[in-house]
Amino acid sequence: MTATRKKNPGGRGRGVGRPRAGKANVREGLIDAAIAEFIRTGIRATSLRVVAEAAGVTPAMLHYYFGDKRQLILAVVEERLLPALAPMRAGIEAGGSNPVELANLFVNGVGGMVAAHPWLPPLWIREVLCEGGALREHMFKRAIPQLPQLLAQRFAAAQAQGRLAPDLDPRLMVVSLVGLTLFPAAGAPIWRQMFDAGDLDDDALRRHTLALLGHGMGARWPGRSKARRKPE
Amino acid sequence: MTATRKKNPGGRGRGVGRPRAGKANVREGLIDAAIAEFIRTGIRATSLRVVAEAAGVTPAMLHYYFGDKRQLILAVVEERLLPALAPMRAGIEAGGSNPVELANLFVNGVGGMVAAHPWLPPLWIREVLCEGGALREHMFKRAIPQLPQLLAQRFAAAQAQGRLAPDLDPRLMVVSLVGLTLFPAAGAPIWRQMFDAGDLDDDALRRHTLALLGHGMGARWPGRSKARRKPE
Repeated sequence: MTATRKKNPGGRGRGVGRPRAGKANVREGLIDAAIAEFIRTGIRATSLRVVAEAAGVTPAMLHYYFGDKRQLILAVVEERLLPALAPMRAGIEAGGSNPVELANLFVNGVGGMVAAHPWLPPLWIREVLCEGGALREHMFKRAIPQLPQLLAQRFAAAQAQGRLAPDLDPRLMVVSLVGLTLFPAAGAPIWRQMFDAGDLDDDALRRHTLALLGHGMGARWPGRSKARRKPE
Repeated sequence: MTATRKKNPGGRGRGVGRPRAGKANVREGLIDAAIAEFIRTGIRATSLRVVAEAAGVTPAMLHYYFGDKRQLILAVVEERLLPALAPMRAGIEAGGSNPVELANLFVNGVGGMVAAHPWLPPLWIREVLCEGGALREHMFKRAIPQLPQLLAQRFAAAQAQGRLAPDLDPRLMVVSLVGLTLFPAAGAPIWRQMFDAGDLDDDALRRHTLALLGHGMGARWPGRSKARRKPE
């Protein structure tokens, strides 16, 4: 695993599959190409030959850098997935017990993560959420170990103190937060086209989500002054 | 396409992959096996040979019933996907313009659909939500044509009448509803294990979701009497 760690892990945040010049970038380019193929057809169906071709190198070159597919997957996990999730994880771990603050940290954390790493939601859908997803264990054991449980515990503590509505389930709050953030990010290509919603950017999505979490949709909502507060 | 319609489409609601006795059920058993394989490895990776094997028949028998893979996919769409989604679609189309009522129809509609057709959420994740999903077009052009747009229009009309919080986006309300219903259903195997949440059944999920949609999580929520109202 250490073999996959050498060199600058700063490829995070870059677009996927962008062509690169120069030998120093070959390795990063191969990881980019791997992620793009993993998203397009899934890890199981991705051949090393296709990844090499997409990166514009020979299969032998890919073999030189990564050895086998398992090592390539580990490089994606170590050098992209973990660094992409680290800021959100740190923010939530450092956050307090106020449920509204926790929801803000989560919504803004996912929003920032998705903006910086647009490959993450579709990869998460296919390789974590789908049955047999190859990254599921990496996600929950390496990238965000115990983070869902920590969040649920904080929501439960807040509920015990009367700071979270009593008819919400603290564990399902975590599920709801993911469903209101990562899922809309992954489905954005669908709903943006469906609703002709080019006007709805990431900030509009965050504002909507924080409003829904804050006061729900029902007949009673805070006055416009509160409704218009900036989510950050 | 009509060739895929003969015989009883009543296979809807049955479990996937259950072995069947008797020739009359061979066709239904093949569709069950196809859905199970589509969920497990995706439509693109599924071979007719594997489906036939899983159903306990010869590839020639599968060929006799469906001809080719395209016909098998169309049978899944016509005889399972469309009938599974029809009741929810009809309920929403017949529903009124009250946003809370619309949310109730949606949440309860998806809940009932998932309970009757547990194969639907994982199939939706892999073949509608995933990039290149083979059922995406079938879903939006055949199964629920214009339903998301209809919902968004009703939310927009309700908002114009002051019956939906002004800081919510009517189109994103539809995205939020899907993220709070189909996504948790698809992710249930993950979060049930993660939170050791065998105690949280489908009704608990519905109650939580309707509470969150109704009043949000924030510091102000209705008193216990309202909070405890039955969602149905």
